[in-house]
Amino acid sequence: MLLHSIDEVREVVQKWKTEGYKVGLVPTMGALHDGHLSLIKKAKSICDKVVVSDFVNPIQFGPNEDFDKYPRTLDTDMKLCDEEGVDIIFAPTPKEMYGEGQRLSNNTLTYVCPPFFYVNTLCGKTRIGHFDGVCTVVLKLFNIVQPDYAFFGQKDAQQVIIIKKMVKDLNVPVEIIQCPIVREASGLALSSRNKYLSEEGKKDALVLSKILNNIKECYKKGIVDVNALKETAYSFLTNKHDMEYLEIVDKDTLENKTAADDNSIALTAIRVENVRLIDNIYLGE
Amino acid sequence: MLLHSIDEVREVVQKWKTEGYKVGLVPTMGALHDGHLSLIKKAKSICDKVVVSDFVNPIQFGPNEDFDKYPRTLDTDMKLCDEEGVDIIFAPTPKEMYGEGQRLSNNTLTYVCPPFFYVNTLCGKTRIGHFDGVCTVVLKLFNIVQPDYAFFGQKDAQQVIIIKKMVKDLNVPVEIIQCPIVREASGLALSSRNKYLSEEGKKDALVLSKILNNIKECYKKGIVDVNALKETAYSFLTNKHDMEYLEIVDKDTLENKTAADDNSIALTAIRVENVRLIDNIYLGE
Repeated sequence: MLLHSIDEVREVVQKWKTEGYKVGLVPTMGALHDGHLSLIKKAKSICDKVVVSDFVNPIQFGPNEDFDKYPRTLDTDMKLCDEEGVDIIFAPTPKEMYGEGQRLSNNTLTYVCPPFFYVNTLCGKTRIGHFDGVCTVVLKLFNIVQPDYAFFGQKDAQQVIIIKKMVKDLNVPVEIIQCPIVREASGLALSSRNKYLSEEGKKDALVLSKILNNIKECYKKGIVDVNALKETAYSFLTNKHDMEYLEIVDKDTLENKTAADDNSIALTAIRVENVRLIDNIYLGE
Repeated sequence: MLLHSIDEVREVVQKWKTEGYKVGLVPTMGALHDGHLSLIKKAKSICDKVVVSDFVNPIQFGPNEDFDKYPRTLDTDMKLCDEEGVDIIFAPTPKEMYGEGQRLSNNTLTYVCPPFFYVNTLCGKTRIGHFDGVCTVVLKLFNIVQPDYAFFGQKDAQQVIIIKKMVKDLNVPVEIIQCPIVREASGLALSSRNKYLSEEGKKDALVLSKILNNIKECYKKGIVDVNALKETAYSFLTNKHDMEYLEIVDKDTLENKTAADDNSIALTAIRVENVRLIDNIYLGE
């Protein structure tokens, strides 16, 4: 069932709740791929009813980011959701979510602001305001749908950590379920932004998973010094790769480490053909 | 029933909800007076079950404000709530609400941040971060109790406006009920901070309601120019009065007016004996 309005979603979900159904929410920006489908399958496996939100959220994009050209494929998304037995696709307009007649900013809109410590690092360093926009829309979706469970991919590792922190800090009555990264056979992590890449670019993009796999192998062989682990990456890079960051931090708190351990996560962001790609790997698994 | 833990409150309220009861929340910082009791009576009149939270919220006090000396009168509060038939008094510790082992700041804690436009005016000008702290704790209480209705006094006019804005912006599934100011026979608006005043100070504090009543009378007589209305106040002030602000703004949006109308509200903050007092009046009623 495709719904565009907040009131309609609330009405259907409230009816489900009175009938005792457990409700799952999979928040997406559409352009669904197998990564999203893995979240939906997980949701279907533990919930009676599943809502997929399909909304390209304007307030999580910076002024020089790809909001306008971000892929929008609602018809395909609907078919995929149908095949997975999704109960509601919630595809609101920006106006439905944020009202109209105002420039969206923290001058006119209430924001949820995750802690600086979690934001001023990794992706947050260059994507100013990004995680405020993410937390704000996610809390809105939680309040609209009031799910029992919500599903997020480990691909956006910093995002999941920040959302878990928000849920804890604000006592949000939703359980967050984190699902593993889905990759192509080549190793490339699935992302809606992969659509921007040429065939050549997709090959160059394999560098992210190669660097991370190599760091993990080195860690398993006994190298724990974070600087030494990070240095193993540079031989993989060519002039096709514009690295934004490569960090090894605590997988729950994002705290920097000098020595990696089984709670560490290695994360990287690299631009290929000017497309910003991210990937990460748990060292302890 | 006095409860200190979040889990206990959730358990009782969830049981109520499955039984179809409508739940009301009256958020307070304790030190209950007839103003609070009017909120509780209103809640009792439209809800099946009423929760009063009694928590002096550290994150809404600035470093030079009265957090430590703010009156704490839980035993009296409990008696008053009992007389009104309150079902739960929720009196958590700061540790229960915010965890321990961390300095409370936006470096370590997720905050709800109301729009700058609503915050950088009136009380927010001098109470930096105050409304972030208020919205954060109120949203936490909403998420813990999950009430159908929540009750706030018009006394803290800017607070109610900001909370209504938060509820709208974040799609919070709670209906906000605003209740009128309760005053002593003298005209003094009830406030927990009145306890700080001497008998002499309480007399000097009547200036707030006098100024506001006079502005309303002048408006009813046909004076609409905001500057002219504000100027009528100065003859009431003596060296016992340290005025922080006197403003006439839109009662819903806080927008400045040059000409008052029936949607206007006059608000003032004045220090008497170094006690910061606030009051306000609707011009249109």
